[in-house]
Amino acid sequence: MPGKKGSEKELISKENFSEWYDNVLLEAKIADDRYPVKGFTVYTGWGFSIAKRIIAMLEERLEATNHEPMQFPVVIPEDSFQKESDHIEGFSEEVFWITHAGENELDRRLLLRPTSETAIYPMFKLWIRSHADLPLRMHQTCNVYRYETKATRPLYRGREFLWNEAHTAHDTYEDSERQVRAGVEAYRSVYDRLGLSYITLKRPDFDKFAGADYSIAFDAWNPDGKVNQIGTVHQLGHNFAKAFDLTYEDETGKQVHATNTCYGMGFGRVLAAVVSQHGDDHGIILPPTIAPKQVVIVPIPIKGKEADAKRYAGDVAKTLEEANVRVVLDEDDRLRPGEKFYKWEMYGVPLRIEIGPREAKSKTVTIVRRDTFEKVKADLAQLVPTVQSLFASIFENLNDRSRKYMESKLTSAGNIDELLNHMEEKKIARINWCGDRQCADNLKEKVSGEIRGTLWETHEEPDGPCILCGDQAKSVAYFSRAY
Amino acid sequence: MPGKKGSEKELISKENFSEWYDNVLLEAKIADDRYPVKGFTVYTGWGFSIAKRIIAMLEERLEATNHEPMQFPVVIPEDSFQKESDHIEGFSEEVFWITHAGENELDRRLLLRPTSETAIYPMFKLWIRSHADLPLRMHQTCNVYRYETKATRPLYRGREFLWNEAHTAHDTYEDSERQVRAGVEAYRSVYDRLGLSYITLKRPDFDKFAGADYSIAFDAWNPDGKVNQIGTVHQLGHNFAKAFDLTYEDETGKQVHATNTCYGMGFGRVLAAVVSQHGDDHGIILPPTIAPKQVVIVPIPIKGKEADAKRYAGDVAKTLEEANVRVVLDEDDRLRPGEKFYKWEMYGVPLRIEIGPREAKSKTVTIVRRDTFEKVKADLAQLVPTVQSLFASIFENLNDRSRKYMESKLTSAGNIDELLNHMEEKKIARINWCGDRQCADNLKEKVSGEIRGTLWETHEEPDGPCILCGDQAKSVAYFSRAY
Repeated sequence: MPGKKGSEKELISKENFSEWYDNVLLEAKIADDRYPVKGFTVYTGWGFSIAKRIIAMLEERLEATNHEPMQFPVVIPEDSFQKESDHIEGFSEEVFWITHAGENELDRRLLLRPTSETAIYPMFKLWIRSHADLPLRMHQTCNVYRYETKATRPLYRGREFLWNEAHTAHDTYEDSERQVRAGVEAYRSVYDRLGLSYITLKRPDFDKFAGADYSIAFDAWNPDGKVNQIGTVHQLGHNFAKAFDLTYEDETGKQVHATNTCYGMGFGRVLAAVVSQHGDDHGIILPPTIAPKQVVIVPIPIKGKEADAKRYAGDVAKTLEEANVRVVLDEDDRLRPGEKFYKWEMYGVPLRIEIGPREAKSKTVTIVRRDTFEKVKADLAQLVPTVQSLFASIFENLNDRSRKYMESKLTSAGNIDELLNHMEEKKIARINWCGDRQCADNLKEKVSGEIRGTLWETHEEPDGPCILCGDQAKSVAYFSRAY
Repeated sequence: MPGKKGSEKELISKENFSEWYDNVLLEAKIADDRYPVKGFTVYTGWGFSIAKRIIAMLEERLEATNHEPMQFPVVIPEDSFQKESDHIEGFSEEVFWITHAGENELDRRLLLRPTSETAIYPMFKLWIRSHADLPLRMHQTCNVYRYETKATRPLYRGREFLWNEAHTAHDTYEDSERQVRAGVEAYRSVYDRLGLSYITLKRPDFDKFAGADYSIAFDAWNPDGKVNQIGTVHQLGHNFAKAFDLTYEDETGKQVHATNTCYGMGFGRVLAAVVSQHGDDHGIILPPTIAPKQVVIVPIPIKGKEADAKRYAGDVAKTLEEANVRVVLDEDDRLRPGEKFYKWEMYGVPLRIEIGPREAKSKTVTIVRRDTFEKVKADLAQLVPTVQSLFASIFENLNDRSRKYMESKLTSAGNIDELLNHMEEKKIARINWCGDRQCADNLKEKVSGEIRGTLWETHEEPDGPCILCGDQAKSVAYFSRAY
């Protein structure tokens, strides 16, 4: 590894993804899964600092496009929850019920929101009177609760998860279609700024959001081959508006039903994608925009010359801080430089600056990139532009590597054997599909994996019959294992 | 009212505080209390935008003073909750219990956190090994849940409330005493930047946090005379450390108990204080730092000259935006200028700029202050510095008014009759108190109000016997009605 030195602990290879991931979450202080309730995870300091920056990125985008920030209660009364029949069917198995307060049984059971449509629509009904009140767009960052029966995994699947959900109401179906596209663009703008690679799919009808006309989802690649759904956008049409009697007075004075969309981005999953797509054997690697600290300065003590290096390290830190770079000067005397390298590499800080008496004397710096371990020397006068350009270069490299990995994993399968092989190789495979649920179910049983949907914007023409039944294929579906 | 014109709807006098408050919450889109579960309130767009800025203000301060941001689960297992006996006694009557998930009864009941000590300490126990791990400071912004039996009131008292809680662990009692002072300073820095007035009291022993050695609280004045507790800081001593077996290895290799502090700031109450202390008959008035929009530009249409005013209004908006002022240009054609004035006054936007063809021609602006309705004219070239200086002046005025009001409400009572009168006049009264709980309870029964505590930093010498029993007084206590 060019220029790499000083790490002293045993590294876990990212090839052993599961072990690597568990270790990194704890060592980089991303999350701690030892909370004494299964499926509930603690976001620890470094991880939540990163999450906060991702949250801010999305919220800014949503607010710049006229979504009002709100906060709705976590509890939903049972009668509200039961208004939209598909929705109940989809979620009732997995809701947590509050039945008592203090010593008393509640008159009416309350559930913890698994998603907030049924909390929000009764209020939308109060707020929407006429077409002038539309479109209405709100968003909230909050936790939602689902009693998952599948195996939980920190950040990927928990019983509590932190997300942002947006809910909108419109006068026409056409306008809600526009909103679906706007939602997709908003989400992509965040993923793209994080350098994540993913495919945008329209989920098959049997896998859409409970109560939606259709659902669009973003599937990010994951090193273990199980795609990671990092967000969804749903066209709800008139379904909820009818269930909640959400009407408005149109320009002719007639009461008509509104249409709705909603979309959700799970920050745990997005954070997991950042960790898993960009990380390496040394730990996580952060795109500079979301790194809580972007540069770590490590003074290298040489006996008798500590004072010079220390003073100069302070100057370098100050220069960067004045340029709004987030810097940490690691002066912890209990750790040797090699231990500090190990720690900050694990944390994924994009750049490390090593400062010894030689640098102090020559007024230069030696900068080490976290992504490539390449060393770059610069004069103090050139420090800020050099750092800024390295940030851009690190982002490009992360983004590129992720995209290339994704491309290398996308393939096609003409028959079941090929498909089995591809799943073995942790790939995502295009298959011709007749569109029947039965074939999808049989396929899932035969091959450990599932039909995730069809490309959202691009129509792909099948080049043969359905991979399973041999009938005429209606679409090219994407098949993979999934979280 | 100097310079005031154009408001067209009937105003509600702030003298009728209760009616005024309910109206303002809805009209200024602060919060909506019509959610179909009692005690659970929706923060609506404008209100939550303000709250987000207050949250960011506190979080920045905490993180600048080495509190790591974290997120803990909302659920606490029953056995963790029951470890500290005073704590259970204090909270068990008011916790919400989750007993079921889907159709199944849970093996172990979970409660919604009323506060997070019992969620956090089992994890602190994992993280703290030696003195080198201390001090440990974390904070989280989250909702907590208390089944209040007192009357609920939006933002002041709900069954769900949004707050920030900080939790710290220390090696010595002395260090946790330092942290208590640091916590107080952190909270004050936020209140002070909001121009709020309050007194800092040490709560009487019978009113301290369940499980604390002692509690410090900030009581803000409220127009109806019921003080509003906007934050608390608690010295927990060794109580929780002993209950949760939170020990560390000291420098001699011995296992000793840590000490702890915690502090919480309820954003609903802080927002209520901003609304209620600064507002007037026209609505809320926002300190510029937390105003989601700091300036509203209202073009005044004069027939045939709309285009000039419109173009110039755009120039003015751009000039301000480039100086990072948060501006809204209200071009809604459905509202007359007077209706816009009413709306943005209700929202408390600090400055309004009215632009007609005359301003467009002379390249000037007319700026109206929300707090005084004073009109200020300025050239476009002087716009930015004028606006900045008006922001400072508005803040000073709000701050001043609030402080003067507080001073006018602080008084002393030498006997019960005087105390009854003061409560009638919505005042906060100093009384001599023997320190006995019995006297406090009797006083509460005789006079609608309560002993809130003694000044935290300043020792005040009683100048007579206990107001109730006539025995020797130990302290000067502050007495008032309270939320």
